Amino acid sequence: MTRILTVAGAQLGPIQHADTRAATMARLIALLEQSAARGARFVVFPELAFTTFFPRWLIEDTAELDTYYEQGMPNAAVQPLFDRAKALGVGFSIGFAELTPEGRRFNTAVLVGADGAILLKYRKVHLPGSVEPRPQNRFQQLEKRYFEYGDLGFPVARGSAEWGAPVMGSLICNDRRWPEAWRCLGLQGVELVAIGYNSAAYDPNGGDAEDGARRVFHSTLAVQANAYMNATWAVSVAKAGVEDGAGLIGGSVIVSPDGLIAAQATTEGDEVIVADCDFDACQQGRGPGKIFDFAAHRRPEQYRRIVEQTGALPPA
Amino acid sequence: MTRILTVAGAQLGPIQHADTRAATMARLIALLEQSAARGARFVVFPELAFTTFFPRWLIEDTAELDTYYEQGMPNAAVQPLFDRAKALGVGFSIGFAELTPEGRRFNTAVLVGADGAILLKYRKVHLPGSVEPRPQNRFQQLEKRYFEYGDLGFPVARGSAEWGAPVMGSLICNDRRWPEAWRCLGLQGVELVAIGYNSAAYDPNGGDAEDGARRVFHSTLAVQANAYMNATWAVSVAKAGVEDGAGLIGGSVIVSPDGLIAAQATTEGDEVIVADCDFDACQQGRGPGKIFDFAAHRRPEQYRRIVEQTGALPPA
Repeated sequence: MTRILTVAGAQLGPIQHADTRAATMARLIALLEQSAARGARFVVFPELAFTTFFPRWLIEDTAELDTYYEQGMPNAAVQPLFDRAKALGVGFSIGFAELTPEGRRFNTAVLVGADGAILLKYRKVHLPGSVEPRPQNRFQQLEKRYFEYGDLGFPVARGSAEWGAPVMGSLICNDRRWPEAWRCLGLQGVELVAIGYNSAAYDPNGGDAEDGARRVFHSTLAVQANAYMNATWAVSVAKAGVEDGAGLIGGSVIVSPDGLIAAQATTEGDEVIVADCDFDACQQGRGPGKIFDFAAHRRPEQYRRIVEQTGALPPA
Repeated sequence: MTRILTVAGAQLGPIQHADTRAATMARLIALLEQSAARGARFVVFPELAFTTFFPRWLIEDTAELDTYYEQGMPNAAVQPLFDRAKALGVGFSIGFAELTPEGRRFNTAVLVGADGAILLKYRKVHLPGSVEPRPQNRFQQLEKRYFEYGDLGFPVARGSAEWGAPVMGSLICNDRRWPEAWRCLGLQGVELVAIGYNSAAYDPNGGDAEDGARRVFHSTLAVQANAYMNATWAVSVAKAGVEDGAGLIGGSVIVSPDGLIAAQATTEGDEVIVADCDFDACQQGRGPGKIFDFAAHRRPEQYRRIVEQTGALPPA
């Protein structure tokens, strides 16, 4: 049985605060259709793909804040995307702000099968930023204020037999820089990691000299190396461009289990990238006797520091 | 106080089985002197730097096997290197096969201060290869036969005040591909990771199509990404070239805490690379509120799988 799935990364350009939900939905559906037209059976959309990246603002009115969150997935507003995907026979992953019936808030992604059923839900573990706004800054990063830490671990699910039954997992934005997150997926045999991100292209407050090229380099480096070290495919997809006055990097990539770039975005706008993901290629890294045959080579008894402390504890 | 240390990587070309210990010692001392002449105060030598990479052979005679091991460090045979380093006021790290008084065998590295005292001893945790030879193969990889798994964890030590008192650690060869190893150092605030390696440039038995360029790419990728994700300097140094009929990659690198290549070898022979390592540059990644401020952002309660299982457990 060949286990090759044609996968797309559907990079989004900016979604401005002034854009209507209907306009955004039309863009998402257009990207889905372009992906399907290029042969993709699974499409990865970015983090928080239905709205502007609202954690850049302090929003004190709960009713206003709620407008950025989805209550139920799917819901009426996003149903057209689910319907079009099902009609095309295409699965997808997408990130959104989740507001639960109990009033809990998470930065969440779902993986959806070609039949429209949700295969997997993941809630972002590595929330960057701060709880309290930094008064001197025009732009904030308030994910720690607007979301709880993900409480679902790092789940995986098998895709359908038609896709080659790959083990699939999800990471969200900053998670991709944390090797612990990748390893938790790798230890479940993950073969495709779907990642969405909104990453600043520069410090919008002017306090940090790192430019967009450096930040794309870091994003790509982390995905390439962690894909290699876990012998998995990875599809890492940006919301990009200048959004409500703050720049976001592009650089969406599809990376092979060998750590090589199979496809890469060249713009900071809506753009589809496509690659054929051969899941059997994961065996080059992880097969019996290979470098990343975890059962043969890992030494968990030496790793306890990873779970027994949080911060760094330098010697005296 | 500026915290800049000029560091060298002293790549070795092959050490053939027929080479004398005296000839090898002369090469090591020449590299040390070249490093010092270029301003280096600390020099990183490769793994198993005193001999050919003997785990490529099945050696059944214990007396013959013992000739590859050091009993005591320093010992009379290596004392000239220690003496010359002390005279130059240069510290170094070097890898060797360790045979303890109790008859235990490890793949070991020591970090040595400018005063000649051993700062730190590390025993390789991630031993590749197999215990039993593969009869069909002309060349073996028998590290699991000739060494016990390292039993010292991932220790760090502070370098001297003259060096800026950096937190220093060591990894050996295959360890550099394991993010758990890097993170155990990162959680101790490591600022300089000294790495030595002997890595095959191709499958000497012809069973695997990966070529040397791909293998250098993987080596460099793993070091760049793990240095970035732990906001540390890394000096990763090869024994390179065709050694006793089997090819070893070069590609020695010095990598900044930003994951950038600060210096890189261009040959597969004896070659010194040098860079100025500014330890305060680690703060760009790990300082308070930064991306890799571990205390603020890590979520160890989600990482338990890393220590509670060894091999991958895919879903049904």
